[in-house]
Amino acid sequence: MPVEKRTPIPVEEAVKKIVQQTKTWGTENVAITDCDQRILAENLIATNDVPPFNRSPYDGFAIFSDDTNGASENKPIKLLVLETIGAGQVAQQKVKSGTAVRIMTGAQIPVGADAVIMLELVKETTENGQPYIEIKRKVKKNDNISFQGEDTTEGELLAEKGTVISPGIVALLATFGYHSVSVFKKPVVGILSTGTELLDVHEELVPGKIRNSNAYMAAAQVKAMGAKVKLYQHREDDFESLYESITAILNESDLVITTGGVSVGDYDYLPAIYKKLGAAVLFNKIAMRPGSVTTVASYKGKWLFGLSGNPSACFVGCELFVRPVILGGMNDKKPHCTLYKATLGADFSKANPFTRFVRASLSIGLDENVVIPAGLDKSSSVSSLLAANALIVLPGGTRGWEKGSQVGVLSWDGEGSEWPWDSPLFSKSSAIKTAEKLR
Amino acid sequence: MPVEKRTPIPVEEAVKKIVQQTKTWGTENVAITDCDQRILAENLIATNDVPPFNRSPYDGFAIFSDDTNGASENKPIKLLVLETIGAGQVAQQKVKSGTAVRIMTGAQIPVGADAVIMLELVKETTENGQPYIEIKRKVKKNDNISFQGEDTTEGELLAEKGTVISPGIVALLATFGYHSVSVFKKPVVGILSTGTELLDVHEELVPGKIRNSNAYMAAAQVKAMGAKVKLYQHREDDFESLYESITAILNESDLVITTGGVSVGDYDYLPAIYKKLGAAVLFNKIAMRPGSVTTVASYKGKWLFGLSGNPSACFVGCELFVRPVILGGMNDKKPHCTLYKATLGADFSKANPFTRFVRASLSIGLDENVVIPAGLDKSSSVSSLLAANALIVLPGGTRGWEKGSQVGVLSWDGEGSEWPWDSPLFSKSSAIKTAEKLR
Repeated sequence: MPVEKRTPIPVEEAVKKIVQQTKTWGTENVAITDCDQRILAENLIATNDVPPFNRSPYDGFAIFSDDTNGASENKPIKLLVLETIGAGQVAQQKVKSGTAVRIMTGAQIPVGADAVIMLELVKETTENGQPYIEIKRKVKKNDNISFQGEDTTEGELLAEKGTVISPGIVALLATFGYHSVSVFKKPVVGILSTGTELLDVHEELVPGKIRNSNAYMAAAQVKAMGAKVKLYQHREDDFESLYESITAILNESDLVITTGGVSVGDYDYLPAIYKKLGAAVLFNKIAMRPGSVTTVASYKGKWLFGLSGNPSACFVGCELFVRPVILGGMNDKKPHCTLYKATLGADFSKANPFTRFVRASLSIGLDENVVIPAGLDKSSSVSSLLAANALIVLPGGTRGWEKGSQVGVLSWDGEGSEWPWDSPLFSKSSAIKTAEKLR
Repeated sequence: MPVEKRTPIPVEEAVKKIVQQTKTWGTENVAITDCDQRILAENLIATNDVPPFNRSPYDGFAIFSDDTNGASENKPIKLLVLETIGAGQVAQQKVKSGTAVRIMTGAQIPVGADAVIMLELVKETTENGQPYIEIKRKVKKNDNISFQGEDTTEGELLAEKGTVISPGIVALLATFGYHSVSVFKKPVVGILSTGTELLDVHEELVPGKIRNSNAYMAAAQVKAMGAKVKLYQHREDDFESLYESITAILNESDLVITTGGVSVGDYDYLPAIYKKLGAAVLFNKIAMRPGSVTTVASYKGKWLFGLSGNPSACFVGCELFVRPVILGGMNDKKPHCTLYKATLGADFSKANPFTRFVRASLSIGLDENVVIPAGLDKSSSVSSLLAANALIVLPGGTRGWEKGSQVGVLSWDGEGSEWPWDSPLFSKSSAIKTAEKLR
């Protein structure tokens, strides 16, 4: 049984191949109460002025400002209070010279009034059972009026298609009457773990077997990316049953993630399954650790992600390769992990013939970010999953890294990045520079 | 109608009063497929060793290492291959001197074998129809064996109660057979907008009225914090009907958020409703802008958040005061907004007699974060909601800020913070220092 020869490509090239084939998942309408964190598939346009009418920003009295000409501490002027309006009420009477309307915050300025004086600045009196106010200062025309349209005018483009719907955007949708909104669809991701060694999470351990953790982990990852998940019962390493499963899952999913069976071992059937399907393999070997055998293929407009069976490689493959397909198809402008610069908080002594992704704990500091490799980061080490919120990216061709080095870090927390792969932090020369500095 | 006098307290004191009364929402069991981003209410303990048995980290041959003593390029040794095992299969035969078992990654080391040699380093041959391998080098005992428990041993504490369940933690839950897990409950937040000026999102504008946006915004905010939301039909400013609504909502919710009606205007009925309920008011005036009239009260173990009706104040009140109650009750160790240091990217010329929270757009940079005030940030300005992902915190007693100043910023994105309020960035002296530096 000769071992198949594969030609590794650089990781950024692999990601580029994927990004080039990314296409939208389409759009759908969702209710305003269900649109949180979705991505706008239509422009958000102001359907009315804001404020929609001249209104009072304070509790006070709407007046005709010329009445206050010459008013002073010693010479107050007196106005008859016609009525009181709260927000949402409209004055029944016009304000004309000698009169005022008591007005609450948010209420529409009565016809005839051209200024508002705050409650605290007037003296309220009663004369012959009629309410009056006394004003001891000049009030300028337009004082304390929030004018119609001063914030936003009808027809204004507020947010473009492709914007993530934050709570602030939800407020604007409500303000402008969007009770439903067009958003980009979430893709359906089918997840299948393969491996004769796998048990289900509720099963007791038996010799030679371990519980399936990759499928649950990948499900959590892609859910966090905004996708819908279909989790399938794991399958043994058997060509026929795997082929059958995968063709069935392809019918029900936009993306199929498999874990395991993708290397060149005796029971690694995924390559043969891609071949039998006639799927177009984008790459099957990447100059990276872990996850060098990660294989990505496309088939009839759907995606096949053949992730490695080891947890670290599976995790990394999901974040680097699946993420941009899911988020890119939802038109997210920052579909890749967020790039941070951080100080390495511990030595990392392994040499890196290839680009290495080290699961790590990143602490965002006020003045400096610090990153520490999580656990052993053996590729089989599940315990390194514990504290990890980021991947340290160590360029290939470097001989270990010292504490204090400046490194590039990719994190799935944060707002994402457009294209982190050109960063100088990921170049070998950056590594050499930081090493020289430390010496 | 005399205006009620209220005594403002500093914002950090207001938050402290809240934190002191925070209590847990209790716990519940959820399936592993539903536990993403929830918070562990039990310690995660390793229920078995990892690996659970000695296993091969590579495709290769399991051998008895002493057999290779003296093996060299010129003097290869030959071993009979007894059988082939993939991951999940257990060898039927013992490996003894002169024999080997072909073994795939992840498979259990056969009894008798004490090392693995990688596939690429042997020559496979056949003699009399029997498979053999030739080895041309010394293999040391224990080479290429991942030993039982070398990653994690049974009984080890992996993650403490209070840890957020990341995809990595999901993987560990699966690994250790937690098909369901105890997590802290999500509180139910009832949200009611008050105001005679309000229309529903699907209604056409009429004079003096605006659509209710605060309730939808607050719903999106508290959902993002992990709470469950009950959104109620907004109510007019009417004491009796509001009192009735609020008592009904209290029965169905852990927290009640109202927006509007909390100031001292003629139609602000919330203070009187708190009084009639007999709710204990923690504070009703804060030395901050916007949102100085934000009122928080407790009643029979439930919370009443009286947020201001203006969108900015409502938004800020939710992030500063509601967040720590929701997250604190789920035992999140970082229940407050994340604190960042950032360079102010534009002048902010308004004086700040009180602590001011300016909605802003924060860009996390590799070397520096930059923050720019969003929109006008008038308190009524909905358009400032658009790009905002953070609040600039400008200490009280300062006279405007120049572009280039270092400021403290609180963001709802990010992992949160334990207690940001003691930061020197929030002190007046920090403001003075940065101003001097710029001159």
